[in-house]
Amino acid sequence: MSTLKHTGVTAAAGFVAAGTACGVKPSGEPDLVLVATADSRPVNAAAVFTSNKLTAAPVVTSYAHLATSGGQAAAVVANSGNANAATGAQGLADAEAMCATVADELGVDPSAVLVCSTGLIGIPLPIDTILTGIPALIAARGDTSDHGARAARALMTTDTHAKESVAQAGAATVGGMAKGAAMLAPNMATMLAVVTTDAAAAPDVLAEMLTSAVNKSFNVLTVDGCTSTNDTVILLASGRAGTVDRDALQHALDTVCIDLAGQMAGDAEGATKVVRLEVVGAASHIEAATAARKIAESQLVKCSWYGQDPYWGRIASEAGSAGVAFDPDAVSVAYGGVTVAAGGITIAHDEAAVAAHMAQRDLQITVDLHLGDGFAHVLTNDLTHAYIDENMGTS
Amino acid sequence: MSTLKHTGVTAAAGFVAAGTACGVKPSGEPDLVLVATADSRPVNAAAVFTSNKLTAAPVVTSYAHLATSGGQAAAVVANSGNANAATGAQGLADAEAMCATVADELGVDPSAVLVCSTGLIGIPLPIDTILTGIPALIAARGDTSDHGARAARALMTTDTHAKESVAQAGAATVGGMAKGAAMLAPNMATMLAVVTTDAAAAPDVLAEMLTSAVNKSFNVLTVDGCTSTNDTVILLASGRAGTVDRDALQHALDTVCIDLAGQMAGDAEGATKVVRLEVVGAASHIEAATAARKIAESQLVKCSWYGQDPYWGRIASEAGSAGVAFDPDAVSVAYGGVTVAAGGITIAHDEAAVAAHMAQRDLQITVDLHLGDGFAHVLTNDLTHAYIDENMGTS
Repeated sequence: MSTLKHTGVTAAAGFVAAGTACGVKPSGEPDLVLVATADSRPVNAAAVFTSNKLTAAPVVTSYAHLATSGGQAAAVVANSGNANAATGAQGLADAEAMCATVADELGVDPSAVLVCSTGLIGIPLPIDTILTGIPALIAARGDTSDHGARAARALMTTDTHAKESVAQAGAATVGGMAKGAAMLAPNMATMLAVVTTDAAAAPDVLAEMLTSAVNKSFNVLTVDGCTSTNDTVILLASGRAGTVDRDALQHALDTVCIDLAGQMAGDAEGATKVVRLEVVGAASHIEAATAARKIAESQLVKCSWYGQDPYWGRIASEAGSAGVAFDPDAVSVAYGGVTVAAGGITIAHDEAAVAAHMAQRDLQITVDLHLGDGFAHVLTNDLTHAYIDENMGTS
Repeated sequence: MSTLKHTGVTAAAGFVAAGTACGVKPSGEPDLVLVATADSRPVNAAAVFTSNKLTAAPVVTSYAHLATSGGQAAAVVANSGNANAATGAQGLADAEAMCATVADELGVDPSAVLVCSTGLIGIPLPIDTILTGIPALIAARGDTSDHGARAARALMTTDTHAKESVAQAGAATVGGMAKGAAMLAPNMATMLAVVTTDAAAAPDVLAEMLTSAVNKSFNVLTVDGCTSTNDTVILLASGRAGTVDRDALQHALDTVCIDLAGQMAGDAEGATKVVRLEVVGAASHIEAATAARKIAESQLVKCSWYGQDPYWGRIASEAGSAGVAFDPDAVSVAYGGVTVAAGGITIAHDEAAVAAHMAQRDLQITVDLHLGDGFAHVLTNDLTHAYIDENMGTS
């Protein structure tokens, strides 16, 4: 039985991890990652991938491997520093080569290895550098919290700190790591997460539970409306803790994913605000989510947050152009619980309280459409000078 | 018969204009605008309004007046400095009061007056200031080019220069003015345009022709994906030049609207690039337009233009997530006619030529999806530090 002895992908029983530097990053920082089962045998697995049609080679490869293996995997290999996206047939061959090399070292079928990459798009992967580095990566693996932490560290691109989490579900543990740096530099910031558990569950159950957890966590994190070519969340289940209550396992999985998504929203040196934007009173949950996303992705709204300006009219305007049911004479907007507009017009309110709320790092904004029972929220950031600095160039 | 004696809304025979300062803008700059028929009698008219459901009071009022009058108008009154949007019942009363006061002065029915406002959202209109200023505005009207220029000047918010245009259609003239400052500060930059012609045409024909012209001009201008609460384009036709060839009139109307939209794209102190982004080879024209808009509204892509970086992978990634048919192994991207990627991967190209193109103010980018015959283009700008400075606050 595992305990909460530590956080991350090695917290659950039956998993090892490693993070090393192989030379993809010119800086010499760690850039190669392994998560594997302790005995190198395949276990049940599931994954959720990007919806972007410019699907990166590792996504295509991992998807095919999971299909071939019937939802089983023994290892995940990942590199940071290069996304291996928009790299054509050579990119696919490179992703396969990464899996084959790891499989060879571990003595498993290549289809039991999943692969992730994150970094620049459209640049051929330095595959020889990576393949040369894999034996040392495999040799460095271990099941301590340090091993998990080193894996999380090597997954980083523009992240300012590694992201790990853990939660308990009865006798079972769920632990995970992620990378993704919110507003800072999403052009290099694919969202990747690897979650492990020692609970036992069938691949189709894992897939259902992972989709549910992702919808509550990573999918409510909207940065700038861009869907990465490489976004991937992988769940591996060793089964060593046996079967546990499904609701408890779902709750633990949700907890880990929500925690990791929150760490991403907060990891934004370029951003000065982490905003939880809630839309309620929409005609449906889907319409609430659509409106929340439209508002959260508005450059103008994001700039007003940076300026600590409670410019509710711009928020209402975005809701009005979101393509959802909207009554301009019904909408209300609140900042930090203080309603500044109701019935579609500005109302008297405690301006000092709103100003104090806007000055905080964490903002809570609620838009009530007063039309129905639909609600949704998103986590997002402000748009800042530093965001532009980070995204002006690829280098 | 009119001649090309000058540009703007007074170029066509039968129109007068004025621009004065009444005190809406604290700076004392001109903020009140009139365009009217020379004899104060209603003429055939048409208008295109914003699709935003948070429709500003002047849009609601102008729409109702055109319906009541059966497509006739004798005057347009407009103010800058306050959008009269999200202002509830009082806002509607204020918009009606502006029309009624002008109608009274000109001796026409209030339904023969259309109204526009542009500026901040959610702040009650200083209606007494405006109504007090209207007699002086009416008294200042005249048909010279100076009068048209003063009207165009008073329509400005964050525009750095007034925007006027003129074109000839046989014996008839089409002249217009517009406001809207591209990337600079769209939170105050509703797009407004008033176009006049001395050609004769029925209201329904004018409406068809105006919609067609708007689709070719203002609707291909995308700044940041925000649809203003106040966007309005009005066309008035005095009929003094009689009936002219419809194709010639459409061409002249297109020319004026495209010219005004181009002036908007170019009027962007906050922007350093004016980008014509073309998507070709899409499954349909609509899909081409959808992809072009998704790319043009991407913060990441806009930042890369600011950094003069031909980061084609990010453009392809946006096309891949636009929800249109997309083959990652087919897409090609060209900057200034130099193809940097084809078949979904980077190809050898003249990097110096691309760098020289990226250093220019006017960029031409072509994305070929290689799937069909659909094509579309948008005009847009880069995302800069100055954009954020302008949009951090309402003051």
